[in-house]
Amino acid sequence: MAHELKAVVDLGSNSVRLVIYQQGPQGTLREVDNLKQTVRLSSHLTADNAIAEQGIRLTVRVLGQFKQLCEAYGVTETIGVATQAVRMAVNRDELLKRIFEETGIPFRVITGEEEARYGYLAVVNSIPAEDGVTVDVGGGSTEITYFRRRRLVACASIPYGAVSLTREFIRNDPPSSKELKAMERAIRARLDQYPWLEGLRRPVIGMGGTARAIARIHQRRRRYPLHLLHGYEMWPTEVTAILDMVRSMPVTKRNIINGLSADRADIVVAGTAMLDQILKRADATQFVISNKGLRDGILMEQVLKARREDLLPDILMHSIESIHDHFRLNRKHAIHVWNLAGQLLSGMIRHGWLTAGDEVRRWLQVAALLHDIGRTVSIYNTSKHTFYLLLQIPLFGVSHRDRIHAAAVASFKSTKQIQALLANYQEFLGDEDLPVIAQMGVLLRLVRALDRTETGAVKRLELCPDGTGWKIRIEAAKPLGLQLDLAAEWVKKWRKVFQREIRLEVDHLGRTPDV
Amino acid sequence: MAHELKAVVDLGSNSVRLVIYQQGPQGTLREVDNLKQTVRLSSHLTADNAIAEQGIRLTVRVLGQFKQLCEAYGVTETIGVATQAVRMAVNRDELLKRIFEETGIPFRVITGEEEARYGYLAVVNSIPAEDGVTVDVGGGSTEITYFRRRRLVACASIPYGAVSLTREFIRNDPPSSKELKAMERAIRARLDQYPWLEGLRRPVIGMGGTARAIARIHQRRRRYPLHLLHGYEMWPTEVTAILDMVRSMPVTKRNIINGLSADRADIVVAGTAMLDQILKRADATQFVISNKGLRDGILMEQVLKARREDLLPDILMHSIESIHDHFRLNRKHAIHVWNLAGQLLSGMIRHGWLTAGDEVRRWLQVAALLHDIGRTVSIYNTSKHTFYLLLQIPLFGVSHRDRIHAAAVASFKSTKQIQALLANYQEFLGDEDLPVIAQMGVLLRLVRALDRTETGAVKRLELCPDGTGWKIRIEAAKPLGLQLDLAAEWVKKWRKVFQREIRLEVDHLGRTPDV
Repeated sequence: MAHELKAVVDLGSNSVRLVIYQQGPQGTLREVDNLKQTVRLSSHLTADNAIAEQGIRLTVRVLGQFKQLCEAYGVTETIGVATQAVRMAVNRDELLKRIFEETGIPFRVITGEEEARYGYLAVVNSIPAEDGVTVDVGGGSTEITYFRRRRLVACASIPYGAVSLTREFIRNDPPSSKELKAMERAIRARLDQYPWLEGLRRPVIGMGGTARAIARIHQRRRRYPLHLLHGYEMWPTEVTAILDMVRSMPVTKRNIINGLSADRADIVVAGTAMLDQILKRADATQFVISNKGLRDGILMEQVLKARREDLLPDILMHSIESIHDHFRLNRKHAIHVWNLAGQLLSGMIRHGWLTAGDEVRRWLQVAALLHDIGRTVSIYNTSKHTFYLLLQIPLFGVSHRDRIHAAAVASFKSTKQIQALLANYQEFLGDEDLPVIAQMGVLLRLVRALDRTETGAVKRLELCPDGTGWKIRIEAAKPLGLQLDLAAEWVKKWRKVFQREIRLEVDHLGRTPDV
Repeated sequence: MAHELKAVVDLGSNSVRLVIYQQGPQGTLREVDNLKQTVRLSSHLTADNAIAEQGIRLTVRVLGQFKQLCEAYGVTETIGVATQAVRMAVNRDELLKRIFEETGIPFRVITGEEEARYGYLAVVNSIPAEDGVTVDVGGGSTEITYFRRRRLVACASIPYGAVSLTREFIRNDPPSSKELKAMERAIRARLDQYPWLEGLRRPVIGMGGTARAIARIHQRRRRYPLHLLHGYEMWPTEVTAILDMVRSMPVTKRNIINGLSADRADIVVAGTAMLDQILKRADATQFVISNKGLRDGILMEQVLKARREDLLPDILMHSIESIHDHFRLNRKHAIHVWNLAGQLLSGMIRHGWLTAGDEVRRWLQVAALLHDIGRTVSIYNTSKHTFYLLLQIPLFGVSHRDRIHAAAVASFKSTKQIQALLANYQEFLGDEDLPVIAQMGVLLRLVRALDRTETGAVKRLELCPDGTGWKIRIEAAKPLGLQLDLAAEWVKKWRKVFQREIRLEVDHLGRTPDV
């Protein structure tokens, strides 16, 4: 198969991180492994800004290990990038030379602006946001961008990160109010250099270890039912609340906070304060977590170059293509089912059955395109597996709320069954959602029955008035025996969920008779 | 890929069933689709034992649909077998000729003894039982076999099934005591012809729709936490209890029994009575459900022929091979991890750490061979996915209890986390199980860390006394950098779960120094 493995190593001030991606034939990407080692390169900087020999050795040792893993995977290309700690090191050339000699990984020191831009690229190609601000709080620096209609408008790099702020401002444990205030003042002074950030009133999308730690802490506290970080949404005030919590605890107590790893306990106050100040400055409407960042942006740039595009035109479809590829689903059948389902949905909207907006269409789209995924686990209890997988697989371009709804539509068997599946996810459901899920669920089941043989025998579906009731006109290119038998069950349920009479009318293109 | 699709169609007295299997290069089998239509062929028998024209047409129509599905899948071989209803039909040649002319599926009428033997083949190659009785209650006949050390000892075919018994003995709804008694007497009279069945005191393994319905009803009533039928175990008296329940209800009430499908509600009393009588006659020690039966036995015969074997020598390993293939897991790595884990387990037993029997070894084996499966869902929360998949994927040769334990070992991160995962599965856990799971979990994590690069760098592990404590001697063929770093965490946990000091000692084969 034409799958290529590529790796990116990011040599940061706090940690060294490796991500390995499998690149599919159409430029689809799937993360297959990642690894992090906390080296704290910035703590190996001497007073005259050189990385001490011990720091160099430690770095070389860890990168040697990463190289081993890449070789074991058969990675064909490894890209190394170094950020703030190396940017400011006077002996950076020596460091990179040593690394290359001993591991063969070529490293490039990127500027703060490049770093910011890669973060932006990762976000706008994985999070469904038109306008927003990206923030990547690293160990030694923080990158900020502002994008409108997914285009980069401005970017900034501030040489303050969770590690460097901690080193410069915090002596006491827990930090004193005075220390914290001085730190926040310093952050604000830096932000003053970027007047475009002020009062943007846009969602702020956060990357990096600090943002992830905050999201994890928040999820555990409120017992969030989904195990997904990417796309997780918080109110900006909730970040302030977590800052208040962590700053009041000594490191030993922070160590046991559920969701916070021990190697971040000491720097989490500074990192959170940085995020908090940016959220306040931008007057953020929302805080969203992105699991994709610098490393992903670097590979995304390659993918986009190969596609001759600036941005993925459709994040969701790109992501679904990657899922089709990975799970070896019948893509043609999936797209056909979505086309037919979309025709019925359009008919319903045209005839005033539904006032469904983009949201419902998206649920049906994801459900239709991935309805078969549960069968990859087992052909028994497929609905259960489909529901599970749709909440767990990497899927970009939809919100967590969208995922839950799409999963429910895709795995629909009956209203009762779907109520049971959704029991833990009530917080995502509005009052009107369950009937809509049932309607889309029955619609999809009917369409699936009509392509049960996956031969595309049904060419088009049209919802039409039929006396006092309704009919679905089926344009068929081949005989529909099994399909109509299987569809009959859903015609019955259709009446129940839509409360309208419906019948199927087959219109044969050509003259093949029905079986 | 060298995967071939094969189908078996079974033309029974109650239903027509299709199963499509994907056959892998090493003779592995994976069920990819199945379909059932309730034709009730036996109800189309005229007084002079001919299948009426309407019955023929209906059969041909349904088989035409199955053929469509097979063609859509690209099935290369479709095998048709017909059982009791066709066996006894005087116009069976005409029926099969019509079927062949209109669908191209060649059908063979098999004898009751052949049918019994295929059921036996399906069972002994998918259920881990050395000695037992198989029972397949169909619509028109019931097949029984007795096997010892997995070898067929005796078999029988009784021309009574759920449909034919209902037709012959039941007039009232619910059936009267008199009707039921007469039916049971008739069954016993038939069983008298097979004296070998009496008092066998072995597990009885049930196939067919009646057995599955009984298991489903039982699982729903007791809220069984696993969604698996195959291998489900009941006490024989529980079958009697279900018989008592269904016989006292009219069909309309049976219709709404949770677990019983509407098209079986009328015949379930007769089918259950048949099973109940056989369980009593054999003085069964247990009733076990097999989801594999006639159709699976037919394909299994082909696989065994190609392998030049009478029986699969190792059901579990055959099943795991099929899973490795389907989920594209790194089989070499999986086997290597299992070898290393097995070496440590053997060492523990040798040194008296554990008195672990075959059960613990099997848990560790399944866990080691499938530990990576969760990564196929997403590389985040892999433990959760591994646990889910190990409870859901088709896996043969282990009990449900084994599955739960293997899943827990494979997804172990900490005792607390595993306790939470196992909360719904308390009924499978003995008092001593949790510490053993934690020990095997840590052992497996340590071994996984030592092959994190999947390069087989570690050749052998040996548990040895080391002063007052213990050490693991690691024979390594390549430098172990990353592996030892990652293993360190599990050495710490090792002390906790085994309450013994341990250290790692690397012994390099050849002279390559450590990174």
